[in-house]
Order: sequence, then C-alpha cells, then structure tokens
Amino acid sequence: MDILELKPLADQLFADIGALTFDGVGITRDSYGAGESAAADYLRRFAGQHGLDVQCDRAANLVFALPDEGAHAPAAWVGSHVDSVPQGGNFDGLAGIVAGLLCLIARKAQGGSGAAPLRVIAFRGEESAWFGKAYLGSGAALGKLGPDDLALKHRSSGKTLADCMAAVGADVEAIAAQQPLFDRAAAAAYLELHIEQGPVMVARKLPLAVVPGIRGNIRHNRIACLGEPGHSGAVPRWLRKDAMFAVAELITRLDEHWKVLLERGTDLVVTTGVVSTDPAEHSISRIPGKVEFSFEMRSKSVDTLEGFYQLLRTECKAISRDRGVHFEFDRRIESAPATMDPALSDLLRGACAGAGVPMEMVPSGAGHDAALFANAGIPTAMLFVRNEHGSHNPEEAMDLDDFMLGTQVMYRALEGIRAGRQP
Amino acid sequence: MDILELKPLADQLFADIGALTFDGVGITRDSYGAGESAAADYLRRFAGQHGLDVQCDRAANLVFALPDEGAHAPAAWVGSHVDSVPQGGNFDGLAGIVAGLLCLIARKAQGGSGAAPLRVIAFRGEESAWFGKAYLGSGAALGKLGPDDLALKHRSSGKTLADCMAAVGADVEAIAAQQPLFDRAAAAAYLELHIEQGPVMVARKLPLAVVPGIRGNIRHNRIACLGEPGHSGAVPRWLRKDAMFAVAELITRLDEHWKVLLERGTDLVVTTGVVSTDPAEHSISRIPGKVEFSFEMRSKSVDTLEGFYQLLRTECKAISRDRGVHFEFDRRIESAPATMDPALSDLLRGACAGAGVPMEMVPSGAGHDAALFANAGIPTAMLFVRNEHGSHNPEEAMDLDDFMLGTQVMYRALEGIRAGRQP
Repeated sequence: MDILELKPLADQLFADIGALTFDGVGITRDSYGAGESAAADYLRRFAGQHGLDVQCDRAANLVFALPDEGAHAPAAWVGSHVDSVPQGGNFDGLAGIVAGLLCLIARKAQGGSGAAPLRVIAFRGEESAWFGKAYLGSGAALGKLGPDDLALKHRSSGKTLADCMAAVGADVEAIAAQQPLFDRAAAAAYLELHIEQGPVMVARKLPLAVVPGIRGNIRHNRIACLGEPGHSGAVPRWLRKDAMFAVAELITRLDEHWKVLLERGTDLVVTTGVVSTDPAEHSISRIPGKVEFSFEMRSKSVDTLEGFYQLLRTECKAISRDRGVHFEFDRRIESAPATMDPALSDLLRGACAGAGVPMEMVPSGAGHDAALFANAGIPTAMLFVRNEHGSHNPEEAMDLDDFMLGTQVMYRALEGIRAGRQP
Repeated sequence: MDILELKPLADQLFADIGALTFDGVGITRDSYGAGESAAADYLRRFAGQHGLDVQCDRAANLVFALPDEGAHAPAAWVGSHVDSVPQGGNFDGLAGIVAGLLCLIARKAQGGSGAAPLRVIAFRGEESAWFGKAYLGSGAALGKLGPDDLALKHRSSGKTLADCMAAVGADVEAIAAQQPLFDRAAAAAYLELHIEQGPVMVARKLPLAVVPGIRGNIRHNRIACLGEPGHSGAVPRWLRKDAMFAVAELITRLDEHWKVLLERGTDLVVTTGVVSTDPAEHSISRIPGKVEFSFEMRSKSVDTLEGFYQLLRTECKAISRDRGVHFEFDRRIESAPATMDPALSDLLRGACAGAGVPMEMVPSGAGHDAALFANAGIPTAMLFVRNEHGSHNPEEAMDLDDFMLGTQVMYRALEGIRAGRQP
C-alpha cells in the first residue's frame, strides 16, 4: 500500500483528538492530567481497532508495536509527545505520534521487509508549562528525573509531579531512584517528526526540513524581586523600592545585551513568559513590593547559555544596589543542547530526495524529547513539518498534505534501518 | 474633661476593629463589603453605647452627632473613611473617624460652648483598590459619581459598584442621577485627621502636620499591551512581538522621563501597581502575547499630570511602532489636585501652637475625601498624624500618643468654629 492513502485516517485522528481536548479556546492536554489522558486513551483504543499492540512503560508513556515484530531485536523508535501547553494547538507533539502510528499500520499491511522492528512511543509530560520542567516522560524513561523534579508542583492544582505521575500508573519509586526504564541497547535509532514551531519553513516555502540540532536552555520558573510596598501617592521616587520598576529595568537591560549579542552572530533567544505583581496584595495605589517572573534563554551553545546566565545574575546585583530591591532565585533548570546523528539525518535527507521533496536543514529552537535520546547516546534524527502561526497557541496550522509527505519520508527512512544493524 | 483622658477608649476602638477585620496578614475592610460593614456595624454599636446619634446618609456613609445639637445650623464636619486596601493597615482612614468620635464624646461631656454643631462622617469606599476608583462614598454624597462609575466591577467578585452599594442600603438611583445627597449649605467646614502615608514626618520628627494641599492623579486601571504569542525557543528576536518586553521598555522609558522631571523640581510620582502576563495562557515557554497593567501618576499640578499623560501616550505609540505591539486603554480616571482652606488651616496651626506641638506644613501625596470637599467649595483642612512604615500595608504604625495629640488639636480647632459663622 501507499502510505499516502492513509490520509483520511490521519485526518480522523487529528479531528477526534482535537475535539476531545478542545478547551473552548484552544487545545489543552495537561501533562499527567485529564486532557493528556483523554488523548492517550483514545490512542490506545485506536491502536486496538487497528490490530496494534499497546503497552505502558513504567513512566506511563504508551508504546505501540506490531504484534509479530520481535520484541528483543534492536528496534527503530519513533516518538513524540501527547501533551500540550494550556490553550495550545493540536499538532505540537500529536503529529509525531500519528506519523508513527501510520507507519505501523502501513508496515502491517505491507508485511516484513527486513527492516528493524518499529516501536512508536507516545510520551507524556513533554511541555514545561505544567510543572515548570520539560521532557518529564522521556526523562523518566531515561533515568534523568530525580526527587527534586518529582517534587515540582502543578501550576494550578499544586499537586506534586510524583502524585500526578503515580495517578496515571507510573512507577514513581523507580523514577526517583533514576533507574533507566528504557533499554538503550534495544534502540537502534530514535526518530521524531514534529511541526516546526518557528516561522522559518513557511518563509522559505519548505514542506519538510531535517533538524541538525536542538537548542538547549537555562530556566528559572520563578525569580522573586522583593522591594518594599508603599503608598503610590506618598512615597517619593528616591525612597521607593519598587519591585516592578526594578524588573522592568532588568528586562530592558537584558534585551539590550541580547541585541548586542545577536549583532555578533550569537544564537540566543530570551523570554520572560510569566510576570506578575503579587495578586494577594497588589493594587493600583500601592507600590509593588514583590514581582515574580520566569526567565528562559535558549541557545545551541553551552557557552552562550552560561555567559548570558552570568549576565543575568550580574544585572540583578546591579539593580539590587541601585534600587534597594533583592532577587530570590528558585532552582536553576537546564537542558543541554543536542546534536542529531549525521548518518540517521542523511537517511532522512535521502528519503526526502527519494520522495522528490525539496528540503533544507533547519535547526530547532524549541526543545524536543529527541534531545534527551541524542544526549543519551542513541542515534537520533528529527524531521520538521511546515506549520503556520508558530505553536503553543490555538492558531497553529499544519497542512495535512505536508504532514503525509513527512510521514512518507519517515516511513522510507525506517525501511532503511535494517534489522540487527545500526543505521 | 481633658480629651487626652479618652486614650483608653481610642486604644479599645483600634484594637477591637483591628481584630474584627484582621485577614490573617493585615487588615481588610473591603469597600461595600464584609470587612467595611463589620467595622461600620461596630462603630454604630459603639456610638449607641456612648449616647451618640447615628444615621446613614443616602450613600450609605455613617453620620454621627450629639442628640441635642441643632440639625439645621451649619455644622463643622469631621470625617474619614472606614475601608482599607487588601492586607492594609488599621489606621488609614479609621484614625480620622475615631478622632471625630472622641471629639463628640468630649463635647458631650463638656456641654455647649457656642461652637458650630459637630458632625462626624464615616465614609465607605474611599480606597481605589476594590473598584478601581477612589472617593466613592464621599463622591456619591457630593453628586460626583455617575453611571460609568456605578458600572465599575469589584476586583475579585466582579459585582458592579451599583449592586454592592445597593446591598448596603445606598440610594443607587439618586447617585446615578448625580443628585447631591450632602447639603453643602449645612457645612461650615470639613476637617479630616489622617495618618501620613509617606515617610516625611518620621524623618523630620513631627508628630503632627497641617496639609496645604492634596495631589491629584490620572489613572488607568487597566492598559492592555497586545503583541503576538509564540514559542519561546523558536521565534527569533526580530520576528517577536513580545508584550512583556514592550511593557518593560515602556516602564523604563517613563522612569527615565520621571527622573529628568524631578531634577527640574517637578512634583510627580508614577506607579504601575498591577502588572501581569495573561494567567489564562502564559507559560515559561511562551512569548507573552498580552500583558495588562495599571498606570497611575500623581502631582500637585494639573499641568504636570496632563503633560506626563501625553508622554505616556506618545511612548506607547513609539513602542508600538518599534515592537509590533499595540496598547488598549480603559477609561481614564482622574482626581483634581486640591488646595486646603487657608483660614481653616490657620485654625489648625493655631491649635497646634496652643497645644505646644511643633508643626510644619506637609503636602499630601495620597488622596483623601477632603480633596472632594475642598473642590466642592466647602472650607476644608487636614491634619496629618505621624505614622511609620507608610500605609496600604500591615506594618503601618501610628503612636497612640501622637494620635491623641492630633485629636486634641482637632478638638481645639472645632471649638474655634463658631455657630452660624464661617471660620
């Protein structure tokens, strides 16, 4: 069969799971929560209806396989994540899982071809929006989550990650002990198809792109700037310790440094996604005594990350001196940049060429579960599918024909990973 | 009797009402809400126990008087407000009411002296923290509240001011029609004792100060900066429309203008008390597409207010151009600066001199109900009592001896306002 014939099935999967997890504005599939589980349950039923095996790993990720493909031979893994940010889009994560499932269904129809067995893994908890840390499902599988991580709290319920993971069946004790639950030796390769979350491919009219590397990041979920509250009419400027004016100056200074670094060709993005005066005490007529904000920067370069981080700390010290405030930092969270496997990437490029698809290398600004697999020493490659309006918002828009082209390229590449050999 | 002997009564009033409206952190007497009403009910019972008359005016403010003092002769009014900001202090507002009540009790003990009849008015709804606008109780009494104001919504319940005022017995229809519910002809004078909310008197070691004028203000409760949300890792700086970086730059620019104006001797304070990315959609890994913030500036000078306001609008336009964002403004709310009555202020100064209290003139950065009385053409004066740690916070600290000294000065000044004559 031609895998392109599975387009109606892809359409149905996206439509059904999108409808199931629509929140009135966008898509909400909360990590280890109701939306993610609803999508996971749907996928499980779908797999059953199409004669696929499905199991949970000990980190509560779903693993799909053909019933007759050897469980012990090194497999080619295809994966992505089930969850979304709040009010996010339908394709971020889900596209990679659907692509994998279509490959399984196509291979089932086609029969054995000497390719390595195929496993499709649907990760939970990739998005940092819910617990302030990304790659929870893949991190747990690879033994990279520790007790500090399991103590992270859900952004709105306040429940710990440990409790939420346990509630969906994860083996929290094994995860806390950093046992590798995923057998690296059983993985010949890890491939991930994902929508591009930036604007590059739309601008360059590329339906597909192969990803050479993934940006790393350093984050603080919450930095508190503490000044002194006071009456907005009665305290003169020189006696103020206004936490909001301090944070505004910090952001403006960092923005200026960022501009200078970009002019020098540095790879860097900087974001303060969550900023707020204290809702318990703020008012129009009160000088803010406390502002909390998140900080995130990403770069391909570990040196850039570390250098800019030191700049952040230095500027906080300078502003503390100038304005009589001080800054309190929560735990620094980081993800290492990752380089994709050249041989496996060549396989994807060759598959693009074979399908007659124009293709360029486009680095990933966003993080992906693939980064953890690459940094765990498993040959890893990624394929981007063009997507409009970015992601992490309800307007993300992937053309289904682009997606099917990407699925076809993945399928061809998987056929090129032979049983019992590295690619 | 010597009014200083009433100190234990003052102590009890502050302690009881403070305990009644303690929120676990500070004092919360929400305008037209539970805390304010609890304090009002206590004051009503207290007045009854001490043989004072108490009535509600049609704006639901409480008016206290001696039963035997002529209801129709022009009276000297003493007032302040019952409400507080969330997690505020015990003395902001309440001190002026307690001072008035002690004056009534002292006059009752002393008997008629030819002074103008004394009325004490306890205003509801002075603080802008709850409905985004100040002087609601005094404004309603003076016919200054309109339908737009009555449609303002409570910061947390979302109920309209009209509903909340009606619930405590105010005549909302008369208020909406801007009927003056307060008979100006029946007011020979308005006096207000209030804690200082700035740091000047503590620094200058002044227990009391007479207020020459009150700063006016221009406010927006909510300005929205609208950019474009996006993935924090995938969108390069030049394609971002980051609403938070835009607001940070706006605040920083305004701060720089403010510094320059202060160096020229301009009277001005600027505050953004409430700033927040959108809790419905913000996350660490998302470029903020929307930030809401409040804006307030205060000055003695109408020209400074108008000039700086135009600067705000100009800077918003410039930042909109630079950063691809735009700003949406809610209704502009303003209070005019007010000048206190020189003759009545002299009466307070004389009373200070008579009591042997060192005194200076200290202008009020904070707004007060007195500003509305002054701008309504009623001779108005204010007396500040020293207070540590500013106000609008639980740490405000007024020494009870300073307060009693202030009450004594008020009492002496009131004796100087003769029946049937302007002061």
